[in-house]
Amino acid sequence: MSNSVHVYDTTLRDGAQQEGLNLSIADKMTIAGLLDELAVDFIEGGWPGAIPKDTEFFARANELELAHSTLAAFGSTRKPGVAVEDDEQVAALLAAGTPVVTLVAKSHVGHVERALRTTPSENLAMITDTIRYLSANGRRVFLDAEHFFDSFATSRTYALDVVAAADEAGAEVVALCDTNGGMLPSRVREAVDAVKLAVPGARLGMHAHNDTGCAVANSIAAVEAGATHVQGTINGYGERTGNADVLTVALNLDLKLGLGTLPEHSRAEASRIAHAISEHTNIPAGARQPYVGSSAFAHKAGLHASAIRVDPDLYQHIDPRAVGNDMRMLISDMAGRASIELKGKELGFDLAGDAELLGRVATRVKELESRGYTFDAADASFELLLREELGGRPHFFDVVNWRTIILAAETSVDGEVDTAEATVKVRIDGKKTIATCEGNGPVNALDKALRQVLEGAYPQLAAVNLVDYKVRILDSASGTDAVTRVLIESTDGAASWTTVGVAANVVEASWVALLDSLVYYLAARSDAVPAPVPVGAHA
Amino acid sequence: MSNSVHVYDTTLRDGAQQEGLNLSIADKMTIAGLLDELAVDFIEGGWPGAIPKDTEFFARANELELAHSTLAAFGSTRKPGVAVEDDEQVAALLAAGTPVVTLVAKSHVGHVERALRTTPSENLAMITDTIRYLSANGRRVFLDAEHFFDSFATSRTYALDVVAAADEAGAEVVALCDTNGGMLPSRVREAVDAVKLAVPGARLGMHAHNDTGCAVANSIAAVEAGATHVQGTINGYGERTGNADVLTVALNLDLKLGLGTLPEHSRAEASRIAHAISEHTNIPAGARQPYVGSSAFAHKAGLHASAIRVDPDLYQHIDPRAVGNDMRMLISDMAGRASIELKGKELGFDLAGDAELLGRVATRVKELESRGYTFDAADASFELLLREELGGRPHFFDVVNWRTIILAAETSVDGEVDTAEATVKVRIDGKKTIATCEGNGPVNALDKALRQVLEGAYPQLAAVNLVDYKVRILDSASGTDAVTRVLIESTDGAASWTTVGVAANVVEASWVALLDSLVYYLAARSDAVPAPVPVGAHA
Repeated sequence: MSNSVHVYDTTLRDGAQQEGLNLSIADKMTIAGLLDELAVDFIEGGWPGAIPKDTEFFARANELELAHSTLAAFGSTRKPGVAVEDDEQVAALLAAGTPVVTLVAKSHVGHVERALRTTPSENLAMITDTIRYLSANGRRVFLDAEHFFDSFATSRTYALDVVAAADEAGAEVVALCDTNGGMLPSRVREAVDAVKLAVPGARLGMHAHNDTGCAVANSIAAVEAGATHVQGTINGYGERTGNADVLTVALNLDLKLGLGTLPEHSRAEASRIAHAISEHTNIPAGARQPYVGSSAFAHKAGLHASAIRVDPDLYQHIDPRAVGNDMRMLISDMAGRASIELKGKELGFDLAGDAELLGRVATRVKELESRGYTFDAADASFELLLREELGGRPHFFDVVNWRTIILAAETSVDGEVDTAEATVKVRIDGKKTIATCEGNGPVNALDKALRQVLEGAYPQLAAVNLVDYKVRILDSASGTDAVTRVLIESTDGAASWTTVGVAANVVEASWVALLDSLVYYLAARSDAVPAPVPVGAHA
Repeated sequence: MSNSVHVYDTTLRDGAQQEGLNLSIADKMTIAGLLDELAVDFIEGGWPGAIPKDTEFFARANELELAHSTLAAFGSTRKPGVAVEDDEQVAALLAAGTPVVTLVAKSHVGHVERALRTTPSENLAMITDTIRYLSANGRRVFLDAEHFFDSFATSRTYALDVVAAADEAGAEVVALCDTNGGMLPSRVREAVDAVKLAVPGARLGMHAHNDTGCAVANSIAAVEAGATHVQGTINGYGERTGNADVLTVALNLDLKLGLGTLPEHSRAEASRIAHAISEHTNIPAGARQPYVGSSAFAHKAGLHASAIRVDPDLYQHIDPRAVGNDMRMLISDMAGRASIELKGKELGFDLAGDAELLGRVATRVKELESRGYTFDAADASFELLLREELGGRPHFFDVVNWRTIILAAETSVDGEVDTAEATVKVRIDGKKTIATCEGNGPVNALDKALRQVLEGAYPQLAAVNLVDYKVRILDSASGTDAVTRVLIESTDGAASWTTVGVAANVVEASWVALLDSLVYYLAARSDAVPAPVPVGAHA
């Protein structure tokens, strides 16, 4: 095994093939930034020329300022019977301007003849020509040998010819793809062994899918057999059953086999980064995900509990802090109090001496969580709760009432886009103020009206802007009767903070979070209380 | 490898350790029946004597009338320093009356000394005594060697002593447990090889957890090295990251290694049974689960779609019908004409001959997706779009206008929960109808009002219910100005379908999806058009 194994992330390209996963350009830019924080070696950004959004992503890629990772564009070899310099798709790959281009090529005769409708020899020429052309234009070229393992099983010679052709033409990596995902580790190992013998000079990679539940194990087996490049996606996103989970693979290589593919400090951020990416894909993070799942180090009371009290390592395969995760004991309020104490400390409140207060806060958090609240991502709402229990939530205004009206777009005239109207009435120092504002939706209109009634007394709120708004339906099996959770992230340009609201009504849930956001800012700017958390602390 | 490998299911015992999973006795009885339909060899029902619910389950087990599976009770070896015939917990195991008793025993010196607080030799005596006693009382005894692999790595001799002691005392199976789940397949194989050499007579089993993402692969590796008994849970339920998914393991053994652990007819029921069990655990079935997930044979990529049109086997690792699943095509901006043609075919429209129509539909899908629509999860909206382009979208009613009013909860009296009111006006055959309804949110109120104005002309809509409602904020970097996408799943009890709506306003987006849902149902129920897709096709 080599100590230098590439970690190649394809979340933005192959991961985006997952059912229900659709990334905007803004999402792709943010995720690329998070992957760079994780310090993966390569980020495959998409297929320029084939997908307009991906072309635009690469056009904006210089804004990313990646510190650790190298950007790769994915595309196909030239078309059959077309000179490589005349191939538009190949031109789009060059135009993407990435240091690396990863070419997908057929390596299975059946696919060459039936899907590509050309000859095996023309396919080899397509591979050779495209690699040489891109190399001559200054690109590092990686080759994804599609259906390699199926081809190896049925027409081994051709499979090996493809690897040899790519290697001779100058491909830096030949990634062997289990495109249909049907492999098991023993077969992967056998195939990689054979390729190492047949094409000893090639740097081999592994691209696995999880159709047998063995994507991670297949990647590890390939590395154990000599591959030095692993491809995968964050949270195992991908078509069908998903790709290999790149974090699980890298953490296994580092923590089980001692390879050091990710720097220690970014391994310690693995849980946070995996969860942050799941916020952008809007696919809930899997609680049972290896290493980074919220249940990955959670123990239910029973056989394990007494042993864990003796020594946590008796029932943990690694120290969860190594991957930024935490051991949790379920059905035990001890863990609850401990984390509340820690969280309070993080926010500048020393709660260690007050067991009664800790118990009260723990009970209230549990009650609110049972109603759908979550404070993991909503520090500002948690801090307001803590202030309330400490008797220190400052009082700035009373809401008398509010309402919103949403009008059918069909009734709007002159192409007017505002379709919602909100009225908010508050009382400040005995004086009532009312305002009505229009917006492109009820939350937008409420936000405007609320600021308007407060701005006379609290002009500092003019600096506050909403930067993120997330909606999650909880218990979605009951249709529109479901409970809605809204998370709102706000900023004043210097700091950012997140608040949460829960209600049957999406507008009411948003209102609760909006209100908390402004109250938090007013409280945090009061002299007696700590400043808001710096921007990035919630990223 | 042996052709006769036990499939041992522990969903009802180890699976129930999962966070958030709580099974009633009725649930356990139903799940046991489903496991028997699947024809697993052994069903571990629980821990009698330790968990009252489990004691009662075994007391009622004769009601199960199992046709294929054998019931096992799980428990521990006798306590240190207690005669086996005086041990209450061992007595409860006998009282459960099962043909098989599976004993868990420590096999790691550190655990024996620190958690059990006894000596390594007393631990061996506990194993020997308990196996002999239960065997003498007519039970088949299996032994779970807890922490076997960790012990093998640190104090190999003792680990092997435990297996030898169990084998000599008459245990029919010794299952090697990766209790903390930290193993990789190559290490499992190495350990099983060593045990086969040291204790050649023992029948070995594998009990894997998924903490490295390798539970399935570790089970397969053990079988390849000579184990003939695999333990796991349906859907991989279990503490932390879960146990080995017993179905994925068995299907890999059968369909990849040709072992025949499950009869062919029950393999063909695998998807249905896995989903039925997830209804009883109330944990939503994972779409990306190998073999049985609803996405396991779903294809999105344009690259794949054109090849699938030629031959579906080019992009499938098995025929999905072998496991009771189905191939599905997803529509997305990555998809070209080929996937639209295939999707049309799936929905009952022959579009093959009409290149111009296919191009028009592809262009429109791409345009809508650039505005935030997604069709890969919204077949019904896609079908309506297709009907429009075919000139066949039936016309049922015109919306004149609609509005909703949301009132602050603060103004409600008598604890009234309805905080939203909606008014909808439609025109049907020249006649205007208007209705106003209240609801716990704007979408709920709009849904009620819309049905009320339509029910006179279309009484069949009374059968339609919303079953799922999902909200996604797109480009959420712009706060409440962001675009909102809503997916609504509806059912009439026999079929289910999903529609999509996109707008700046969450209520308007919901309205679009609601409207499509009812129009789709009316269209699908018209004689001239195909019936809605059966339940399960979208499960």
